[in-house]
Amino acid sequence: MEQVYPLVIIGAGPAGLSASIYASRYALPHLVIGAAPGGLMFEAHRICNFPTEEDISGAEITQKITHHAKSLGAMILNDEVVRILPKRNSFLLTTSQEKEYQAQTLILAIGTQHRQLNLPEEKKFLGKGLSYCVTCDGQFYKGQTVAVIGSGDSANTASLYLAKIAKKVYQICRGPKLHGEQVWIQQVQQNPRIEVIYEREVAELKGEKVLEKIVLNKPHQGEKEISVQGVFVEIGTVPQSLLINQLHLETDERGYIKVHADQSTSAPRVWAAGDITNGSNNLRQIVTACSEGAIAAASVFEFLQKES
Amino acid sequence: MEQVYPLVIIGAGPAGLSASIYASRYALPHLVIGAAPGGLMFEAHRICNFPTEEDISGAEITQKITHHAKSLGAMILNDEVVRILPKRNSFLLTTSQEKEYQAQTLILAIGTQHRQLNLPEEKKFLGKGLSYCVTCDGQFYKGQTVAVIGSGDSANTASLYLAKIAKKVYQICRGPKLHGEQVWIQQVQQNPRIEVIYEREVAELKGEKVLEKIVLNKPHQGEKEISVQGVFVEIGTVPQSLLINQLHLETDERGYIKVHADQSTSAPRVWAAGDITNGSNNLRQIVTACSEGAIAAASVFEFLQKES
Repeated sequence: MEQVYPLVIIGAGPAGLSASIYASRYALPHLVIGAAPGGLMFEAHRICNFPTEEDISGAEITQKITHHAKSLGAMILNDEVVRILPKRNSFLLTTSQEKEYQAQTLILAIGTQHRQLNLPEEKKFLGKGLSYCVTCDGQFYKGQTVAVIGSGDSANTASLYLAKIAKKVYQICRGPKLHGEQVWIQQVQQNPRIEVIYEREVAELKGEKVLEKIVLNKPHQGEKEISVQGVFVEIGTVPQSLLINQLHLETDERGYIKVHADQSTSAPRVWAAGDITNGSNNLRQIVTACSEGAIAAASVFEFLQKES
Repeated sequence: MEQVYPLVIIGAGPAGLSASIYASRYALPHLVIGAAPGGLMFEAHRICNFPTEEDISGAEITQKITHHAKSLGAMILNDEVVRILPKRNSFLLTTSQEKEYQAQTLILAIGTQHRQLNLPEEKKFLGKGLSYCVTCDGQFYKGQTVAVIGSGDSANTASLYLAKIAKKVYQICRGPKLHGEQVWIQQVQQNPRIEVIYEREVAELKGEKVLEKIVLNKPHQGEKEISVQGVFVEIGTVPQSLLINQLHLETDERGYIKVHADQSTSAPRVWAAGDITNGSNNLRQIVTACSEGAIAAASVFEFLQKES
């Protein structure tokens, strides 16, 4: 408890790990605390747009970046910071394992979480047919019928992944067209196992003990109900507000942390990087998260150099 | 000449290539025109801070990213755009090979060039002992005595590279200390073949036909002159102003293109990415260049979608 880390990075996704790599290169002693190694990146089925990687899984790229960070001496704790208490020129952090750490500066790289449907039955079916992670749960649906809800890159790649496993994939798209990378859109549209149902929303989930059916808000080919064994929700992400609120950080209207060019936030000694920020023109890619992490670490290094 | 490309990316360094990868993923037909594959990245001796690469040469990472871009169908021309003529909703580009291309939108990823000493003898000794590229010319100095001028990451890595080849490396540092990544600084300071001379500048280069001596502005150990066979200038980079001036782009006081969050510039239909911009808090790393390229491509895609 007496040790005060010059820097604690909260989050072990691409932004946090890249910040750690840069901090290590600056010889800046620091700790990385992250509940989920790789963050949402870990769950990605295929990543085909990271500049140096033509085709890599989320798990593989997580391993690469984590290994790089560790090779430079990074200490990465698999724990979750649940409370941050600002003190004079430092912070007291408490984790879900009830450990305490002190930090002179923070980089918040806490990423986002899956957006939920907000249906009353959603909790009931979680793990019983309903999932937010295709790469985690997709393999349970071999030869079965599943639905993917969403219309962006995550939904499109989820459908493509599931089309290799399931017999049939319905993709429920709220608007009149799919979004994101045209490469994925074309593959979805050409895949005989995927049927995209446009301008429909899922209004209800049905089933005795496990999920059996989805109910659409409007009929599709005369039917509102579709029998499925699995539903994958891929309707985007939302920022995690807990630590943001504790630090009273300024956010944009959607709850993302407002950052300046140097990744600093509205609170002294707090920088932020990756999907949790409104930086990088809200593009939210692995490469933009890595860039923001690098910039944040450089800014912290400069700040501490001036202070010392 | 009749074909008008929706997008032409000028520059084939990390920013330009990353922009190309993202453009391809968006199925956006485009052309990359770059005089030097990889740009200054290609010359880097070792790169140890790119998140997915623990230790890679500039040539290797150039090859990886170029291969990725080409695998997605990118056309990359090794030519140099020397003139841009804005027309109504398009641009006419002329290259040094006197080829002409038309583009609806541009991404300028033209990078920077080596800053020169601005000594009258500089041109005389170029290629005769004076160099701006250690990885290009370092091997010519086996067992000899060389000097590196500069105090940042490029100078430090240049000294470390040369210390493996040359007998003795003087590093001439203008200020009282070295800058950049502490890892490199420590390695330089611990290397028995490197002698850092602080608070000195090179005032003159001397030699009959080839470089023989550098003259310091103040004596070092009683001597102003040091005999060397090679001098490597690593005092930073400067933006290339030719195309910036032709397009009348707004720049910061140092000549870097001012970009907005979406990488747009002060000129319509012109985006910019990488070292040539004032983005990424002026950190100018490979990962920040890649990120800016991705953001620029996404912005162009969105712009053209709206226009069509």
